[in-house]
Amino acid sequence: MADIVRDLAMKSDTKIVLLVLDGLGGLPREPGGTTELETARTPNLDALAARSECGLHLPIGFGITPGSAPGHLSLFGYDPLACPIGRGVVAAMGIGFPMQAGDVAARLNFATLDAAGAISDRRAGRIPTEKCAELCGLLKAVKIKGVEVFVQPVKDYRAVVVFRGKGLSDAVADTDPQASGVPPLDPVPADEKARHTAEVAKEFVAQARKILASQTPANGILLRGFAELPHIPSMKELYALDALAVAVYPDYKGVARLVGMEVVEDLADLDAQAKALAARWASHDFFFVHHKYTDSRGEDGDFDAKVKEIEKVDAFLPRIIELKPDVIIVTGDHSTPAVAKAHTANPVPFLVNASGVRPDGVKKFGERECARGAWGIIPGNVLLRLALSLAGKLKKYGA
Amino acid sequence: MADIVRDLAMKSDTKIVLLVLDGLGGLPREPGGTTELETARTPNLDALAARSECGLHLPIGFGITPGSAPGHLSLFGYDPLACPIGRGVVAAMGIGFPMQAGDVAARLNFATLDAAGAISDRRAGRIPTEKCAELCGLLKAVKIKGVEVFVQPVKDYRAVVVFRGKGLSDAVADTDPQASGVPPLDPVPADEKARHTAEVAKEFVAQARKILASQTPANGILLRGFAELPHIPSMKELYALDALAVAVYPDYKGVARLVGMEVVEDLADLDAQAKALAARWASHDFFFVHHKYTDSRGEDGDFDAKVKEIEKVDAFLPRIIELKPDVIIVTGDHSTPAVAKAHTANPVPFLVNASGVRPDGVKKFGERECARGAWGIIPGNVLLRLALSLAGKLKKYGA
Repeated sequence: MADIVRDLAMKSDTKIVLLVLDGLGGLPREPGGTTELETARTPNLDALAARSECGLHLPIGFGITPGSAPGHLSLFGYDPLACPIGRGVVAAMGIGFPMQAGDVAARLNFATLDAAGAISDRRAGRIPTEKCAELCGLLKAVKIKGVEVFVQPVKDYRAVVVFRGKGLSDAVADTDPQASGVPPLDPVPADEKARHTAEVAKEFVAQARKILASQTPANGILLRGFAELPHIPSMKELYALDALAVAVYPDYKGVARLVGMEVVEDLADLDAQAKALAARWASHDFFFVHHKYTDSRGEDGDFDAKVKEIEKVDAFLPRIIELKPDVIIVTGDHSTPAVAKAHTANPVPFLVNASGVRPDGVKKFGERECARGAWGIIPGNVLLRLALSLAGKLKKYGA
Repeated sequence: MADIVRDLAMKSDTKIVLLVLDGLGGLPREPGGTTELETARTPNLDALAARSECGLHLPIGFGITPGSAPGHLSLFGYDPLACPIGRGVVAAMGIGFPMQAGDVAARLNFATLDAAGAISDRRAGRIPTEKCAELCGLLKAVKIKGVEVFVQPVKDYRAVVVFRGKGLSDAVADTDPQASGVPPLDPVPADEKARHTAEVAKEFVAQARKILASQTPANGILLRGFAELPHIPSMKELYALDALAVAVYPDYKGVARLVGMEVVEDLADLDAQAKALAARWASHDFFFVHHKYTDSRGEDGDFDAKVKEIEKVDAFLPRIIELKPDVIIVTGDHSTPAVAKAHTANPVPFLVNASGVRPDGVKKFGERECARGAWGIIPGNVLLRLALSLAGKLKKYGA
C-alpha cells in the first residue's frame, strides 16, 4: 500500500494541519465518570467536530501501548513496526545533533546514587536544564580510545550521549533498571557484534562516575535506548509533502526530522507556535503542530491539569482555523490517562475536517462520542492518507 | 505482530478470565424478533456489559464459518489460518491421548448400517459413553501389519482412532458422507504420499465391520478429520501466560492442551467449574472457562433451550466476578443460531471488562447492542491482546 500511495501522491497548493495533543486519550477518573477530554470545556473542538468525521485510532495495533516515537510515526503515515527507532536516536535528533551512519546514541539520565552505589533517585531531583548542561560539560573529560564521545543536554535531568567510531552496534542493554534501591545495571551486549560497544559504554559509565562523584544530587548516570540511525524515506519522497514541524519539545522535533520535516526552532509555547504557523504558512503544505503537556499531566496523574491543557489547546484552535487549512486532523499519538499515569493502549479519538467530509453527528469531541463517529476504530497510520485524499493530493487509482 | 507481542509480553500478578459460551452468536427466530442472547434474561451479563467495552468479533474472517478448533485458537490469540488443526487431533488431545510426531488421528463415530450397508443412523442412536468404551475395547482386536492402532472412547457415540507407524500421512478423505441412506465412503488418499495411510484406514474399517457385525445399533464406523499433530507455540512461550482450561467437554480440553494450557480434569458442570476456578485461582493467570451446551442446543435447533443455557451461564457469572479478575472477556467461538442448526459466519458478540476500559453505553449484552459498542467488528484473535494489555501484561512498544 505504501508504494501505491507513493505512486499516487502529487503536489498541490492545499494545506493540511495535523494537530497532536500528546497522550490525548484518557479514562474516567471514577466508575461512571468522564474522561479528561470529555470533562474539558472545548467549544472550539466541539464545533469543529460537528463539521468533521470522527473516530478512534490505534497507533500501532490492538493492545499495543505506543511509545512516543512509534505513535508519531504512525500519525505521519508510517508502519511503526517496520521502522523501529531507539530512544537514543529520538533524543539525539530532538536536540538537532547531526548523527551520522554508524553512530550509536543513548539517552543519558542523571541520577542520584547512595553510598552503597544503589539508585536513590532515577531523576536526580529533576535538576534544571542549566545544571544538566553544566554536568554534560564536565563529561567532556571522558576519553575512550578509538571512540569520539558527545554528551549533550536535553531537558531537566535528561541528556544524550553519542558514540562515534568503527564497529559500533546498538545491541546493548539499558543500564537503567527502572527501579530505585538497586545499583545501575551493566551495559550487557546482546550479541558478539555488540561486545566492543558494551565495553565502550562501561568505560564511559566508570569515568562518568569518577567525574560526578562530588556532585549533589546528580552523582551518577543511567543509559537507555542504545540506538543506531535508521533509514526512513522522507514524507517528501513518500507523499510529495513539504512538511513543517511546529513543536516545542525536543523529542518530537527529533521524530519530525527523521521523516524529513523542516523544524521551527526555539518555540516556547502555543502562542509562539501559532505565530510560527502563520509566518510559515506559504512555504509548506503539511504542518505538524504538537502540544506536549497533555501527556505530561497525564503521566503526573493530574486529571484536572490534563483537562486544563486540553482547554488551552481548544483556545488555540481558532488560530489554526483562521489560516483556512484545507484539512485539519486533531488527535493524539496515544492515550495517557491520568488514572494510569502512563501511556496505555486505549484507542485515541480523532476528527478529520475538510470540505469533502460527511459530518457524522458527533457534537462533542470525546472518546465515547468519537466511538460512535463515522470511522469507528481504525489504524492510526491511515489518517495521513485520509488527509492527503481530502486535500486533493492523491490521484485516482486505476482507470 | 505476533513476534512483537512475544517481545512485549511480561509476567504479572494480574488475572484474566476468558468465558466462552460455545456458539454464542444467534439469529432472530422470526423476522423482527430477537436472537437467543437478546431473548435471554441476563441481568449479570447486562450489568457487566454496562461496565465494559463491547463489540462483535470475526473468529477467522469475513464470511468464514469457524469450526470449533479454529474458533478457539482465534480466542487464544492465534491466527487460525496459520495453525490448521484436524478434527482427529482435537479429539485425541481432548481425551488426553499422548500423540507423538508422525501419528495420524481420526475421529471415529459409531453408526448404524442397514442390511445393504447404507447408513441408517450416523450416530448409532447416540449410544451412551459406556457402550462406546466397550465397543472401543472390542476394536483392540484389529491387527494391521507395521502399524499400531489405538481406539479410545470420547463421549456418547464418538471415539478416536490413532495410527502409529512409519510413513503415515493425514491427506486422507473422510469416510463419513454426512448423510444417511448411502454407504460409508472409502478413505481416499489425496496424494501419493497418503496411499499407504488410506490402505491402513481401509483395512481398519474392514476389520472393524467384521468385529461389530453382531452389534446393535452400533454395527459400523465412520472416520473423519484425519490429522497429524501440528506444532503450535504455547501461550506461555507467546504471552508468558500460565493458562488453565476449566472445561467439561473433551474437545475443548484438547484445543487447550495444543496451546500448552494446563487442563482441569473430571468437571461435570458449571458448579464444578466454579469450584475448580476458585481452587486454582492462585496458581494461574489466564483462565479459559468453557460452556458447551449453548452450541449443542443451537445445533439441535432448539431456540428456547439455547436461551436457557445462556441464562445458566448468566447465573454462574457472579462466581467468576467474586474472584475479582483484572480482566474478563465474555464471548463465543462462533455463532450457532438455532434457526440455522449449525455454525454460521455471523459475527460473535463480546464484552471486555477491566478497570482501564471506557464503558461504551451498551446496557444489554446482545448482538445488536454490541454492534453499537465501542469496538465495532474486529478480528477474534486480537481480543487476547486487548486482555493482555488491560491486565498490564504487555510492555510499551518503542521509546
